[in-house]
Amino acid sequence: MSTPTGLARTPEPPYYAVIFTSRRTEGDRGYATMAARMDELGRTYDGFLGLDSARGADGVGITVSYWRDEAAILAWKRDAEHERAQRAGQQTWYDDYLVRIAKVERAYGKPQG
Amino acid sequence: MSTPTGLARTPEPPYYAVIFTSRRTEGDRGYATMAARMDELGRTYDGFLGLDSARGADGVGITVSYWRDEAAILAWKRDAEHERAQRAGQQTWYDDYLVRIAKVERAYGKPQG
Repeated sequence: MSTPTGLARTPEPPYYAVIFTSRRTEGDRGYATMAARMDELGRTYDGFLGLDSARGADGVGITVSYWRDEAAILAWKRDAEHERAQRAGQQTWYDDYLVRIAKVERAYGKPQG
Repeated sequence: MSTPTGLARTPEPPYYAVIFTSRRTEGDRGYATMAARMDELGRTYDGFLGLDSARGADGVGITVSYWRDEAAILAWKRDAEHERAQRAGQQTWYDDYLVRIAKVERAYGKPQG
């Protein structure tokens, strides 16, 4: 679980990553509230391993969530509240987005010391 | 190839993603110049498919680069100029970072219309 400004720590690979790249429309229109709720709700799902998220001043954002397996990703995708958020995302919050499902094969961090 | 505020467009999977999450130290210390140069240089490598990058006000950044295969990733990792940037990243620019190498299996975008 990540701290507010920390990076997600995940177990040894293999595991899955969902790479969500997006470009926001202008104005909040309920986005911040939804994003906080989806963060909270997603973390309760079995198989959730962590999440990293960043959005720059140009409106381009990247959220990567980490999952034990594809079944866990699918269960979260089909969550009823999440499905409503996905529809609102298509219609209101995102000019553009792409979702990539990837199997993490190797990982390494900053050398210690 | 992405436009400055667009999202990277990639061919049909499978291909590879390098997910680089990082937390910057305070101050620029040559970072912006290096980042622009690495962006320019990485794109010249055979097998480079695209790149998305975002950094929020909290200092957490995510850069995802897309590659044809693992050999292309390794060739870029071993570029001499890139190796110098990696060492400076460890020593100067990043409080913390993680690199994950993942095989993209599925991808979908915002429905058109």
